[in-house]
Amino acid sequence: MDRRGFLAAGLGSSLVGAAAVHGGEAPALGEEYRGRDKADLPTPALLVDLDRFERNVRTMADHARAAGCGLRPHAKTHKCPEIARRQAAAGALGVCVATVPEAEAMAAASIRGVLLTSPIVERRKVARMVALAQKVQKSEVLLAIGHPREVELVNEAAEAAKVVVAVLVDVDVGDRRTGSLPGQPALDLARQIARCRNLRLRGLQAYAGLASHVPGFERRAETSRQAMGRAVETRDLFAKSGLDAGILSGGSTGTYNIDSAIRGVTELQVGSYVFMDVDYRRIGGRTNPVVYDDFQPSLTVLATVVSAAHAGRVTIDAGNKALDTTVSVRGQAVAWQGLSYSPGGDEFGIVTAEKGADLPRLGDRLEFMVPHCDPTTNLYDRIYACRGNRVEAIWPVVARRERR
Amino acid sequence: MDRRGFLAAGLGSSLVGAAAVHGGEAPALGEEYRGRDKADLPTPALLVDLDRFERNVRTMADHARAAGCGLRPHAKTHKCPEIARRQAAAGALGVCVATVPEAEAMAAASIRGVLLTSPIVERRKVARMVALAQKVQKSEVLLAIGHPREVELVNEAAEAAKVVVAVLVDVDVGDRRTGSLPGQPALDLARQIARCRNLRLRGLQAYAGLASHVPGFERRAETSRQAMGRAVETRDLFAKSGLDAGILSGGSTGTYNIDSAIRGVTELQVGSYVFMDVDYRRIGGRTNPVVYDDFQPSLTVLATVVSAAHAGRVTIDAGNKALDTTVSVRGQAVAWQGLSYSPGGDEFGIVTAEKGADLPRLGDRLEFMVPHCDPTTNLYDRIYACRGNRVEAIWPVVARRERR
Repeated sequence: MDRRGFLAAGLGSSLVGAAAVHGGEAPALGEEYRGRDKADLPTPALLVDLDRFERNVRTMADHARAAGCGLRPHAKTHKCPEIARRQAAAGALGVCVATVPEAEAMAAASIRGVLLTSPIVERRKVARMVALAQKVQKSEVLLAIGHPREVELVNEAAEAAKVVVAVLVDVDVGDRRTGSLPGQPALDLARQIARCRNLRLRGLQAYAGLASHVPGFERRAETSRQAMGRAVETRDLFAKSGLDAGILSGGSTGTYNIDSAIRGVTELQVGSYVFMDVDYRRIGGRTNPVVYDDFQPSLTVLATVVSAAHAGRVTIDAGNKALDTTVSVRGQAVAWQGLSYSPGGDEFGIVTAEKGADLPRLGDRLEFMVPHCDPTTNLYDRIYACRGNRVEAIWPVVARRERR
Repeated sequence: MDRRGFLAAGLGSSLVGAAAVHGGEAPALGEEYRGRDKADLPTPALLVDLDRFERNVRTMADHARAAGCGLRPHAKTHKCPEIARRQAAAGALGVCVATVPEAEAMAAASIRGVLLTSPIVERRKVARMVALAQKVQKSEVLLAIGHPREVELVNEAAEAAKVVVAVLVDVDVGDRRTGSLPGQPALDLARQIARCRNLRLRGLQAYAGLASHVPGFERRAETSRQAMGRAVETRDLFAKSGLDAGILSGGSTGTYNIDSAIRGVTELQVGSYVFMDVDYRRIGGRTNPVVYDDFQPSLTVLATVVSAAHAGRVTIDAGNKALDTTVSVRGQAVAWQGLSYSPGGDEFGIVTAEKGADLPRLGDRLEFMVPHCDPTTNLYDRIYACRGNRVEAIWPVVARRERR
């Protein structure tokens, strides 16, 4: 049998085709798996369950519409233009991004209304954002700014490029991470912006990370209202001073139905709701105090049992490089009972079974709900979008790092 | 002033050139930074100090040569063909890899002697390795195998492809993660391999991860000798049974000068020594019990202070997505005294200063020795190789995930 014959017959599959034998690359990463069963995917692989994902997108869009609040989902969660398109199609105003490469990638994919939520102080990055704002003038690019020096940098670059750049004042409502202090310092910054000929003040951004994961709905609501209250007061100061306070962008997946009811909040920056993760599931929701099930976990990592030499434990091919470990919670096996995952180094994970539970065998596939969706997505270059067990589409993850 | 004039004059740089304005991509990622000062790099960025890196490569090669022990460095640490080439030029027999995409990428870069140290049980991955072995027959590809089922899978694929594949028996010397138990089970596996017409037994692999990071040289030596002793006994069993035990591959950066002196160990699988990291620095060495300084830290993450609104702390643009958090230690600022880093979420890091220490200011650049080199490299798509402050080369990091 010749090589080609072997590959076609011996493996019962045409997947290992010309590319493997001749050393070339497939035309698009993973495209050859479209239409196949997810059991055919090489592991570790990042999967999204389309039924759950679509329901999550719809649930959030319906909520925002009913609450009369805008939606600008955070794309740092997925870094995936295909997902941003679906969020836009469901009614989102645009997307938030955390980095300049993300902004460039989303704009390149014709996503409108890109808001850069992080501060930038490197001249070249500022110039790239100004160039982007100029390129897609019809679809407003927004920059959140938290410091007088940023105002100067962006205005200088905008002036030189003869473009007017839209900005929000980033208000620090308690995270002590980015942004101006609320009240007078934020008002001073807004006035500085208003004086700049090449900047257009559009309102405020206030992200309360300190509220997003507070366990228990009432405690979380209290924390968020207190934090966002500082932003609303600042917004009122802007309005009284005749400054544009049209936008107040904030909120998280944990507080979407809290913040959308706060007077003055005009749009939600929710990110994780499309995927969910173990870390969010445990905070409890308004109706279910035990499991936060307003949105369904749609993102999983598929792994294979590659070693089974000891009683009560097997080794899978998903370790620190496949399932992020930035939070204290661990990945959870889907469709198996009584299994526990712990990292076994960078390349491997260890799966143990409770007494009486079935231990997977060599070659078995396991899917894990991810501990924390954002940094896990950041480890992959594509998401296999599955309808049931069938791979329906392959979605590239972009801008995981600098593109230049 | 026109756009191009602005970009050339306003920024004092031609870096933000045609690509940014016209939306195209630069010909090779980051190539435009070659020859520039590292202060020009967009952050976060992964840097290697070439003087230190080259010294590390030389130190390890000299040690192996003097000890009469082979060297097959682990490429999972760097995933970088440029580095593998330098290791080969210094005398390495080849490289170890942890995944099939790494094996394919290293072979595609003409790196000889690729050893896949991880088990694979997916038919398609097995077929890919067999195809690779066939493609580069002159430069032996090796597979470490730990289970009878793997023997069957590899032999079937090799038979169908009419190729003989070289394998090592992977022996579990205490990590309980992969491999066959030592002694009789490993011997049985070796005999099974010897009976396969399309497999060629070449020896053993034994990795003692349990020894690599034991603090204190003597304790570490004791742990490693005990673990590797099991591999040596198994090797002797192979030899007595007339089986090929020519190769015994093992060892780590923490035990290189321990394992190279163990009778029967023929080659070292050291990985981290090229870069070092905070996690390895703290284990102590033979001559320096406090800091493990046999090799110099060469790998850093460059970050920028993007917010400075609070006393005693600033925010940098390197969080969980830029500095891995898989170990309990934190990144350490280089060339600054009295600073502490802690993650501030996925996008940001928080830097605080001890009393009396200088706190960096908005826009300042900081370099951090990485907590754990392997998963940090896995977050980047290129390494900026610097001679002093000058970017001398841009090295692609490849095969971070599946290429198909």
